[in-house]
Amino acid sequence: MSSCRCMLRVVPLRSLRAAAMSLSRFASAPVLPYAARSPTSSSPSSSSSPSSFPAAFSSAASQASGGGAVAAAAAVAAEGVEDAVGWSPPSLGRVPSFVRIVEVAPRDGLQALQTDAEITVDTKISLIQQLAHAGLRSIEAGSFVSAEWVPLMKGSDEVLRAVLADPDMTDVAFPVLVPNTYGFKQALEAGAREIAVFTAASESFCQENTNCSIAQSLARCEKVIGLAQEHDIKVRGYVSCVLGCPYEGEIDSAMVAYVTERLFQMGCYEVSLGDTIGVGTPGATAALLSTVLSAMPDAVDKLAVHFHDTYGQALANITIALQYGISVVDASVGGLGGCPYARGASGNVATEDVVYLLQGLGVECGVDLSRLCAIGHFITSELGAPYMSRVGRAAGKRSGFRRSRTFSVAEGTVRTRYLPPTVPRKRVSDEEEARIRALYEDQDSGDLEFK
Amino acid sequence: MSSCRCMLRVVPLRSLRAAAMSLSRFASAPVLPYAARSPTSSSPSSSSSPSSFPAAFSSAASQASGGGAVAAAAAVAAEGVEDAVGWSPPSLGRVPSFVRIVEVAPRDGLQALQTDAEITVDTKISLIQQLAHAGLRSIEAGSFVSAEWVPLMKGSDEVLRAVLADPDMTDVAFPVLVPNTYGFKQALEAGAREIAVFTAASESFCQENTNCSIAQSLARCEKVIGLAQEHDIKVRGYVSCVLGCPYEGEIDSAMVAYVTERLFQMGCYEVSLGDTIGVGTPGATAALLSTVLSAMPDAVDKLAVHFHDTYGQALANITIALQYGISVVDASVGGLGGCPYARGASGNVATEDVVYLLQGLGVECGVDLSRLCAIGHFITSELGAPYMSRVGRAAGKRSGFRRSRTFSVAEGTVRTRYLPPTVPRKRVSDEEEARIRALYEDQDSGDLEFK
Repeated sequence: MSSCRCMLRVVPLRSLRAAAMSLSRFASAPVLPYAARSPTSSSPSSSSSPSSFPAAFSSAASQASGGGAVAAAAAVAAEGVEDAVGWSPPSLGRVPSFVRIVEVAPRDGLQALQTDAEITVDTKISLIQQLAHAGLRSIEAGSFVSAEWVPLMKGSDEVLRAVLADPDMTDVAFPVLVPNTYGFKQALEAGAREIAVFTAASESFCQENTNCSIAQSLARCEKVIGLAQEHDIKVRGYVSCVLGCPYEGEIDSAMVAYVTERLFQMGCYEVSLGDTIGVGTPGATAALLSTVLSAMPDAVDKLAVHFHDTYGQALANITIALQYGISVVDASVGGLGGCPYARGASGNVATEDVVYLLQGLGVECGVDLSRLCAIGHFITSELGAPYMSRVGRAAGKRSGFRRSRTFSVAEGTVRTRYLPPTVPRKRVSDEEEARIRALYEDQDSGDLEFK
Repeated sequence: MSSCRCMLRVVPLRSLRAAAMSLSRFASAPVLPYAARSPTSSSPSSSSSPSSFPAAFSSAASQASGGGAVAAAAAVAAEGVEDAVGWSPPSLGRVPSFVRIVEVAPRDGLQALQTDAEITVDTKISLIQQLAHAGLRSIEAGSFVSAEWVPLMKGSDEVLRAVLADPDMTDVAFPVLVPNTYGFKQALEAGAREIAVFTAASESFCQENTNCSIAQSLARCEKVIGLAQEHDIKVRGYVSCVLGCPYEGEIDSAMVAYVTERLFQMGCYEVSLGDTIGVGTPGATAALLSTVLSAMPDAVDKLAVHFHDTYGQALANITIALQYGISVVDASVGGLGGCPYARGASGNVATEDVVYLLQGLGVECGVDLSRLCAIGHFITSELGAPYMSRVGRAAGKRSGFRRSRTFSVAEGTVRTRYLPPTVPRKRVSDEEEARIRALYEDQDSGDLEFK
């Protein structure tokens, strides 16, 4: 592409024809080459390796070292501009070169899941092990809230003990959610080295979610953080409803800035701004970050963003947050999640989709995308939950995973699962199949399998 | 918020506490207030009205006139910066104040739809009328390709005649797809005032899709455009596979720049850059636009972007394209679409989701979002297609639409539809219902209805 770049500078555009036509067929890239190419190490040196396809960068862009694809693209264009044309690329902010993903599926993803499947301690441990194996280094491992309130978080102590004891995961942080001093003591007993506290930027949501005012909630956080500091335990903070509230509608960014600053003052090393109900847009995200960062410029390296994807805006919001220099992003494999107190709120943004986005931007995150897709297929299939990652679904089609709806004649039930190619299709007699297909004559009937 | 802005400038942040706490409950906004507030006119004067919630802007941002929410957010921050803090907001490019949406559902959305439902000429006309009523002013009305190749586009001549004759839609443009001079003659006979021609940036895709090379395809376009010019017919151009090809993988942006320039030279008034298989990312989009615009700076007002959402990146890509100054966006109501030649490619980006994004950015588009969601529900329900708009699905839950799967005992079939609240649920006997529910015991069985 460097030759093309020259052409753009010195040759009238219409002469591009011959050159473009003479471009040989591009090297036959596999359809999903990231399966082979995705970064598995988080070492800075790998940030200059091409993470380009399907991003389809010009090779000039992917050869640029460090600063990411956007910067590279801008640089290419800027070079072209000098000699020939009066166009300069827009500045696209301060996209970081590395993003740390905080994987929240084992806590935020599972806690409100509506499923009849049992989520055992073993399933949770296996999920966390797989996530660590895929390269994630911050994995929310559970929650020490009352098992009466959030039954799916039962056994968080067992999970935490197991993952902390795993010699393969000594470099992984496992924050656990702690609502109060009682929860803190439990977390401490289970060996927690990092906890997360939470409050909200909406009074009504705070009342519904934690049965107290924002002020009371902050006082609770302060107590817990104080205890944590006595035991050298790191504390992460969550602010809910930063871009909208199911009860109040609009949320003033000044309130978000206020509670965020309070959490930092109390000693949180990081605060995650949560669009709990997923109503935010890039415009709202920009407005929020402008308010928060103009009040706390130094916080840019200590802020995380946490988007739910109810209105499909999460990746666009993350793109803007990156342009503001934010370098920590919460995400949930498979798009697992949802908020029990926010009607209509859908899951967290899928980690798979965030990693694909980052790869396309040339931003390192140290996560293996193909492994991540396999985990998304595994866990949603295991739980009977819909698989919400667009990347994972697209990759699944191509990697040979198939959506399988198994009809059990004996039990009269249907189960939807994603199966890897190694599981053969089972058949019944043609007659029986025809009879059953007639019952399921909708658009997806091609997927039906029989046992 | 102007008072808060002052505070951010002159009062130490920790003093925000009292002020923030004293903020009264914000006016009780309805959960989906855009239904009442969404813009219905495209007059520039309305661009200063708040289009903020659920964007949750500070009121300062929504009061800012003209330049959009991002600019407003930046302005707020910049003011705060002067006096107190050392932070300045990132530049976020050149987001336009108005975006024209080209609605492609009646052509690109329907042409490859896999449905058993009949798509009648009347359905197509009704769809177009509803879209125009929602404020869309560019609606792709059909395709004059061989009915053998694309049977769902049969009757495009009837559709075009009907919508052109409709006195309520005299200000709407109805481009129709034309592959060759034979198609052009048919379009001409049907009264077309605008056509669209197409080519690709990938040799292999061009062969598969149109059975000729890129060079041959451009020659065809030139012939058709020449004929159109003789008859004073406007011509729009499409370039497929600008960010990736299902056969070749990566696509060189120089090839995209080349075919785009050729289409402009031939006389296209606008060229739409299509990520036909939806693999593009914001990084790839930035790289592509840098290449194309550094070659053709003046084209910024004549370029459209056309994203499919296979990997969920479409809205993020559009956000970047807007920052590059692009002001024309193709979209398909309900996210209808898909490419028959691109395995795994899912639908176009949903118009509903694009409008929600634009509203959050403070960018006018003249489209009524609540009407659009109703159309999305209508057409996907009518066709038995999955409703892919995230905004429409979230809005549907709240506006009372329900997903209904009707089981016909007599016919042994299931039909999935979205029904408005005015349609009452039908019931069968409890015994019969229990028997049928057992057959459909999957996660969605709560939606089952009976007739």
